Amino acid sequence: MPLTSEQQSEISALRGAQKPTRRDIAPGLEELLYQPLPVLDHGFIRVIDYMGTDSAIVQAARVSYGSGTKKINEDAGLINYLMRHRHTTPFEMCEIKFHIKLPIFIARQWIRHRTANVNEYSGRYSIMDKEFYIPAPEQLAAQSKSNRQGRGDVLEGAAAARVLELLKADASQAYAHYEEMLNEDIAGNVLREGKTGLARELARMNLSLNFYTQWYWKIDLHNLLHFLSLRADAHAQYEIRVYANVMLDILKAWVPITSAAFTDYRMGGASLSAKGLAVVKRLIAGEKVTQEQSGMSKGEWRELMGVLDKPVA
Amino acid sequence: MPLTSEQQSEISALRGAQKPTRRDIAPGLEELLYQPLPVLDHGFIRVIDYMGTDSAIVQAARVSYGSGTKKINEDAGLINYLMRHRHTTPFEMCEIKFHIKLPIFIARQWIRHRTANVNEYSGRYSIMDKEFYIPAPEQLAAQSKSNRQGRGDVLEGAAAARVLELLKADASQAYAHYEEMLNEDIAGNVLREGKTGLARELARMNLSLNFYTQWYWKIDLHNLLHFLSLRADAHAQYEIRVYANVMLDILKAWVPITSAAFTDYRMGGASLSAKGLAVVKRLIAGEKVTQEQSGMSKGEWRELMGVLDKPVA
Amino acid sequence: MPLTSEQQSEISALRGAQKPTRRDIAPGLEELLYQPLPVLDHGFIRVIDYMGTDSAIVQAARVSYGSGTKKINEDAGLINYLMRHRHTTPFEMCEIKFHIKLPIFIARQWIRHRTANVNEYSGRYSIMDKEFYIPAPEQLAAQSKSNRQGRGDVLEGAAAARVLELLKADASQAYAHYEEMLNEDIAGNVLREGKTGLARELARMNLSLNFYTQWYWKIDLHNLLHFLSLRADAHAQYEIRVYANVMLDILKAWVPITSAAFTDYRMGGASLSAKGLAVVKRLIAGEKVTQEQSGMSKGEWRELMGVLDKPVA
Amino acid sequence: MPLTSEQQSEISALRGAQKPTRRDIAPGLEELLYQPLPVLDHGFIRVIDYMGTDSAIVQAARVSYGSGTKKINEDAGLINYLMRHRHTTPFEMCEIKFHIKLPIFIARQWIRHRTANVNEYSGRYSIMDKEFYIPAPEQLAAQSKSNRQGRGDVLEGAAAARVLELLKADASQAYAHYEEMLNEDIAGNVLREGKTGLARELARMNLSLNFYTQWYWKIDLHNLLHFLSLRADAHAQYEIRVYANVMLDILKAWVPITSAAFTDYRMGGASLSAKGLAVVKRLIAGEKVTQEQSGMSKGEWRELMGVLDKPVA
Repeated sequence: MPLTSEQQSEISALRGAQKPTRRDIAPGLEELLYQPLPVLDHGFIRVIDYMGTDSAIVQAARVSYGSGTKKINEDAGLINYLMRHRHTTPFEMCEIKFHIKLPIFIARQWIRHRTANVNEYSGRYSIMDKEFYIPAPEQLAAQSKSNRQGRGDVLEGAAAARVLELLKADASQAYAHYEEMLNEDIAGNVLREGKTGLARELARMNLSLNFYTQWYWKIDLHNLLHFLSLRADAHAQYEIRVYANVMLDILKAWVPITSAAFTDYRMGGASLSAKGLAVVKRLIAGEKVTQEQSGMSKGEWRELMGVLDKPVA
Repeated sequence: MPLTSEQQSEISALRGAQKPTRRDIAPGLEELLYQPLPVLDHGFIRVIDYMGTDSAIVQAARVSYGSGTKKINEDAGLINYLMRHRHTTPFEMCEIKFHIKLPIFIARQWIRHRTANVNEYSGRYSIMDKEFYIPAPEQLAAQSKSNRQGRGDVLEGAAAARVLELLKADASQAYAHYEEMLNEDIAGNVLREGKTGLARELARMNLSLNFYTQWYWKIDLHNLLHFLSLRADAHAQYEIRVYANVMLDILKAWVPITSAAFTDYRMGGASLSAKGLAVVKRLIAGEKVTQEQSGMSKGEWRELMGVLDKPVA
Repeated sequence: MPLTSEQQSEISALRGAQKPTRRDIAPGLEELLYQPLPVLDHGFIRVIDYMGTDSAIVQAARVSYGSGTKKINEDAGLINYLMRHRHTTPFEMCEIKFHIKLPIFIARQWIRHRTANVNEYSGRYSIMDKEFYIPAPEQLAAQSKSNRQGRGDVLEGAAAARVLELLKADASQAYAHYEEMLNEDIAGNVLREGKTGLARELARMNLSLNFYTQWYWKIDLHNLLHFLSLRADAHAQYEIRVYANVMLDILKAWVPITSAAFTDYRMGGASLSAKGLAVVKRLIAGEKVTQEQSGMSKGEWRELMGVLDKPVA
Repeated sequence: MPLTSEQQSEISALRGAQKPTRRDIAPGLEELLYQPLPVLDHGFIRVIDYMGTDSAIVQAARVSYGSGTKKINEDAGLINYLMRHRHTTPFEMCEIKFHIKLPIFIARQWIRHRTANVNEYSGRYSIMDKEFYIPAPEQLAAQSKSNRQGRGDVLEGAAAARVLELLKADASQAYAHYEEMLNEDIAGNVLREGKTGLARELARMNLSLNFYTQWYWKIDLHNLLHFLSLRADAHAQYEIRVYANVMLDILKAWVPITSAAFTDYRMGGASLSAKGLAVVKRLIAGEKVTQEQSGMSKGEWRELMGVLDKPVA
């Protein structure tokens, strides 16, 4: 994520300039504003702007004339209540805007969250950066055997080395040929004088899915929480989960009460089906229950035992 | 729109307190923040919060590291280009939040704009205010004869007086019976000691559609412009148009460049069909064209002549 | 919900005419198509059209070339898996369209579900029907004392009679004055020759919130399930819950596998917070836990004990 | 787009089976159902399902009890009116579902249309097909000089040959290495016995953006028209425009009246700004107008002269 000195000084200029506002302020987030927080080998997340704080949730829930805050503990009580009962609209009253640099194959998962606003760097207008994602060796996992979409054991030795070699060589070659087709490099230098290059919107198709792209991404707090509940989950692909984890830290700095409620009710909680709830009640009553008696499939039973920290057998 | 003194002091407190922020500032909008701008007889619009300015649009369109602004005239050129070519996503990068008091029959039109966030005052939890809309006499129009959903001539004399009398009497009686059913008034006083009142969620059904409700309403700039292009239009019902007109003033204070582009390209412009465009070309070439030759229906022809300021015949 | 004979014969004509299609068919829903299913005193739900069946969910989840169905039990296994793990997009591949008649105060709750398509009967163009909702006597409940937005005991005797009398008299008078202001009745008869009536868009404001409106409402299956999970819930207002309950029957006729999965995983299930899950684990381990030890608020504890069918104390 | 014989027989089975339905039928679209319509070198569009016809638009606009159709010409009049006045909600009452195979760099543009439902073939679960897009020689255009995001002259001779060679060689190599990393081919054969392969979710990052993906894509008619107005436009990238053009044919088969209205009012029409409209009025009045007098920028003036088929000078 090495920024150019011009980019760094633009960021410093923004961070240096404070102006007075009548709007609600999130002091913890002001600290982080504009700074690139590194993710993966070349990616980052920068908070560009935000609207509202925990108080704005309370204020909207009460449709009040003044600020939302009465007393901190009353606000927390109300926010916990809203979170617990899935009264989601007050959380939509806060908004946050990020500048994110991420590999294209992750951007393709990310964009499936439709309730956000996006402006992506355009490969039709501009030349793509020569930056591609190469996993750290400890992330080179084999296909999982138990879970059809996950990762299993980590590759080692020669197998791992060969993967890294292939990924690097292919991406480097793809970019070299991209420049050759464009007849232009990222700095705008023509490579072969007097020749015309291929249109950018075509040449970009030679780049591989581990190349980085970047976008501005703006979302309301309710939809951000939904994004995080899916993407900070253990089932999410590692390469998107690391972005979600950075966002969990940002969340804490921005809306600490909501962040705590989210941790308790969503991230750390569990959903039980009707059958699962029936099993739980029998277990609490001291009965012994087996998968066969439960009416649940083997997969469901395994998941329920996992939630309850009990052995499957 | 008489606010209680408690509400007024809450608003004053918010307006009085300025804090430093690193975020982008819209000076014109800071001036208006929190103040109730009166609309109709008891309604208002208050700006509660905002995110971004004209610069944020430029910044997002360029996916830039620093502030969007290079030079004012370059920014205006880019914003005009984006508006003209309907590149709408950069306008989604600005957001605004209002507190609005409005009659229920207008709220029912308004809520049809789905791409907004809303928290409405709840008649299940709370007692509704005794405030209902009575049109000004000059707004008491008859059904239009030419346009099936519009207004025609203004009612006069006894006819107008009778309408006002009916509206006032019925709304007053509806509210009196609402209180009687609740066995409670707006201040929370029990009316008949020892008796139980009807649930609020039921009693409210006796109120008429001209009673005022209120909500927090948050929307991005692109969708706000879409709302305004429909609701500030001459075909919109007067009672929603007056709200849209106040918002046009707010728009100008918030994002002056975008406001100017919107006025030029949307509010003051016109859409021509293929047939309409063919007629225009022939007129420019000095030909005489009649409705019959144009392939257009009478309605279309009348609308086109209206756009061109020409007589229909 | 008395339909005119013209309306009844239009419905009969549609139900009588069958045509061949290559599309997927839901036999149970074909049976119900176009028929008004009565709700409340004058409301109804009619299924107008649908797209897809349980098979379409499987087909989309597999992005398959043929029909989704392999074997019924494999399909059920996949649908259960998708429901359990909140893989929601395949459920968006089914769509249903309703014609619904409902009181305006219920329409105002309903419309808050934004991910649906709506065409409502227009009081700007057309004269509203003289139909208003009067609760059945057993629904005339007092405000709940424990729950700020619910109902408590049922009113009885004179209190109930008075409420019914007020609701009927006020709605009847409101409609009579609506006609008087329009100078026109629902059949289009002018009431006072030679006089002009008030525009429909204005006169309608005199009607109360228990008047019926109607709309076409189209929604995908995922969002319908979300609607039902909120509106068929015990906390929903009775007058919307009865519509949701009729839709649960329609769901069963349309997509029986999905309906069963929804009943098990959503309607009959429960969400536990991190604290709630910790309590459950301790109870299963045979420990005694009190609210004070749990870290939960009194409200949370009461809710958890309710889920587990245990006394609060 | 060569389908396997199994895929072909699945499609034939679906096309062969007709069942009776009470729903509205679009005869022209029934003809096309399930058939892959080829696009680009390996892509296709298949219509999988649909809801509604032109009649459904009329029916919803009238909130009617029976079928929408009164007489064909009345329906056309209403649909034209709705299209002209941007009354968009009745068009949302029709829905269509496609199965589409398309290059990833086009899928990335396509997915920006958020108001659709999507299920994409998953590279986390499944092995990607060995199919990549290679442009036809006449599509190998240089970067446009006048338009920063378009194409200019076509490359010729050695330059074109070199581009094709690079694209083919790089994509072939990327796929070979993808298989090597997976240690598995598309048929599921292990390549090196006893070795473990890299997880699919990681190996896929080596594929380039011209590889094909596929998805189920479902959208309502209003949003489809919006998609087509942008993507069948001359400014859209050629590789997405060819998909939009096939969809225009599908539109005609599905909703012929709407298709004609769309062609007249949107595809063949033009939007004028306030300044542009002022120029048009002056030209019709026989005045001579120059860019300088118009208040328009050079770009705007050029666009306006283009719309009016007049020389720029």
